Amino acid sequence: MNTSHLECPKCAATYETEEIHHLCECGSPLLVRYDLDKVRETMSKEVVASRAPDLWRYRELLPVVDEANIVTMGEGMTPLLKLERLGSEIGMTNLYMKDEGIIPSGTFKARGSAVGVSRAKELGVKTLAMPTNGNAGGAWALYCAKAGIECVVVMPKDAPSIPRSECEIAGATFYLVDGLISDAGKIVAQAVKENQWYDASTLKEPYRIEGKKTMGLELAEQFGWEMPDVILYPTGGGVGIIGIYKALNELKEIGWIEGDLPRLVAVQATGCAPIVRAWEANEKESEFWDNAQTCAFGITVPKAIGDFLVLEAVYDTNGCAIAITDEETLAAEGLLASVEGAFVCPEGAACFAATQKLLADEWIKPDEKVVLLNTGCGIKYPETVESNPPLLQPGESLPKTQS
Amino acid sequence: MNTSHLECPKCAATYETEEIHHLCECGSPLLVRYDLDKVRETMSKEVVASRAPDLWRYRELLPVVDEANIVTMGEGMTPLLKLERLGSEIGMTNLYMKDEGIIPSGTFKARGSAVGVSRAKELGVKTLAMPTNGNAGGAWALYCAKAGIECVVVMPKDAPSIPRSECEIAGATFYLVDGLISDAGKIVAQAVKENQWYDASTLKEPYRIEGKKTMGLELAEQFGWEMPDVILYPTGGGVGIIGIYKALNELKEIGWIEGDLPRLVAVQATGCAPIVRAWEANEKESEFWDNAQTCAFGITVPKAIGDFLVLEAVYDTNGCAIAITDEETLAAEGLLASVEGAFVCPEGAACFAATQKLLADEWIKPDEKVVLLNTGCGIKYPETVESNPPLLQPGESLPKTQS
Repeated sequence: MNTSHLECPKCAATYETEEIHHLCECGSPLLVRYDLDKVRETMSKEVVASRAPDLWRYRELLPVVDEANIVTMGEGMTPLLKLERLGSEIGMTNLYMKDEGIIPSGTFKARGSAVGVSRAKELGVKTLAMPTNGNAGGAWALYCAKAGIECVVVMPKDAPSIPRSECEIAGATFYLVDGLISDAGKIVAQAVKENQWYDASTLKEPYRIEGKKTMGLELAEQFGWEMPDVILYPTGGGVGIIGIYKALNELKEIGWIEGDLPRLVAVQATGCAPIVRAWEANEKESEFWDNAQTCAFGITVPKAIGDFLVLEAVYDTNGCAIAITDEETLAAEGLLASVEGAFVCPEGAACFAATQKLLADEWIKPDEKVVLLNTGCGIKYPETVESNPPLLQPGESLPKTQS
Repeated sequence: MNTSHLECPKCAATYETEEIHHLCECGSPLLVRYDLDKVRETMSKEVVASRAPDLWRYRELLPVVDEANIVTMGEGMTPLLKLERLGSEIGMTNLYMKDEGIIPSGTFKARGSAVGVSRAKELGVKTLAMPTNGNAGGAWALYCAKAGIECVVVMPKDAPSIPRSECEIAGATFYLVDGLISDAGKIVAQAVKENQWYDASTLKEPYRIEGKKTMGLELAEQFGWEMPDVILYPTGGGVGIIGIYKALNELKEIGWIEGDLPRLVAVQATGCAPIVRAWEANEKESEFWDNAQTCAFGITVPKAIGDFLVLEAVYDTNGCAIAITDEETLAAEGLLASVEGAFVCPEGAACFAATQKLLADEWIKPDEKVVLLNTGCGIKYPETVESNPPLLQPGESLPKTQS
């Protein structure tokens, strides 16, 4: 309703929103632009506060024209939790986690698919296709099922297995590939071309990012429209960090927040850290990362199409990029569960490990307001936890050694 | 703050809330009673509406005295979704699902443990123990971790495996038993006695039910304080249905809702249906169900300690009890995902199968407002979905047969 056009962040070309567009002619992703004067006039904090606790409460800043096209399962307004105990263990007084595990399909991918699928439905799409590291495929398959859109998914065979169940039960057409998401992406690109399917690959359609940006809108609202100092984000394709940056800039432009934006931190795994390498070299784009491998499977993205947008968000906010080992990530996952009761995904856990490092480096100060973005629930990654409990027979007593 | 006493629903004995109590001397579970006049004076719909979207928005009807004792991860205000497409496929115009999969730990057990653990913390408990079919154990282990309470869990070895990961990563002390939850219950009962632990078994402490009752409070609020006609609830231990019934009666007493309560339906599996058998025979209590077995593992409870309370809720609201086969349950799980995009647990799916049957029997009318309670997310039950997608090599094309 308030969209004005699609814009290329690289060459500034513009496109109509009422047509299907994927990448710009120059090869860059496109971003949705709004008539922010109109948004300022038609949207109020009070009205937003009175709406249902889902991401559609920000509908004036979302691209769906006709509300009848909204495909929703109640996604959004995920909890913002203060990590009192864990913060105090590491000497921080204002440590928060936004828990994107509490959302349909158990990961933040629900946001991108809710908005992306709604817009695809509005544009009359019958079949869409995408490569995935698992969770996006599961979420898009489910939202497509609700929308009545055929969904074709290709995912690495080593991806966590639960999203396979999601694709299967949703009735998606899906394949495994004996390779990485980049291999899946090539297969999808070819199939899309041959079949004239709608390409729902990361940033190859402009609406997924609009769903992801609602994490930034919610953070602002949940903090009472005052910004935290630092947001740490596990970065694979990077749509979330680009989206949060976009959201905060839009909020600034309509006058809902003021001052410096939070420093945005792109957290990657040492086994796949193209953004970190680019940031350390002060480059504007990343290079393909060979032999990518990490337990935080969702961020195993050797070369992201939106890498230059991620880097822009980091540079522009005086943020940084940092890589975490799998050992550090798994240790952080254990700490979050055993101290805060939060069973998070490895990607989310990596953000806590990054916080510890940046605190030790004094890049983060102990009293700064710091937010970890946990992108999904740990129950989607049971294989990250080994467990061999004793087996008792009926009538047996518990071993006496217990306290 | 508004609690007045604990009351035995069987013999009417009363107990203080400021002491630890488990069962009544007569062997019955105890229920928390409130000074409802005080609640009526201190709680308003407007104030509730202005609070964060979690179950603590109803704090005047909850048993925690000091808010500092609240152990929360943002649980509650789960989505109430209208099932437009599935309703229209079976000829119903007002079919809804409350989706308890969108909550920490992925099941409604988070409600009972949030309130139960908060009260245990308030009462100074150091160690608690419980038998579980999996999900309650996982949830209590995580909330106990956050509260700094030691948690001892015993679960059947055939229980779904993901809750094991939750117990493990939360740092719980846990065991498997080569039997059913009733066998786990006996082991826990003995250990509790020997070690003077706090017994957190279903309905053996009075506060878990207070957490579960918030499902009823939320349903009332989400329907604008007007009641639906029918609520279907997958019934194992039955704490949820007892809690919803208790909530609606409390809301009636403070004048927030009027008229007849919804007909409450206890949904069980044909492989374990003690409540259904009792209801069919018009009995007030159930008999132990031998050789219990169903894919809806959470409701494999051969004899529930609160069976008489479940049956009272069903009789008093002109509800019914109905058993569903595993085939019907799995078919319903597939339909909910492929038509509505909702990947639910088998227990929740059984409620849709029950709706289809009760509609065919004309016990439910096509235009009645009917709510399925989905108690958890399907991602905790990946084993209910078989999937064998084709494996492609990098560079390969998708098979040409695809549309």
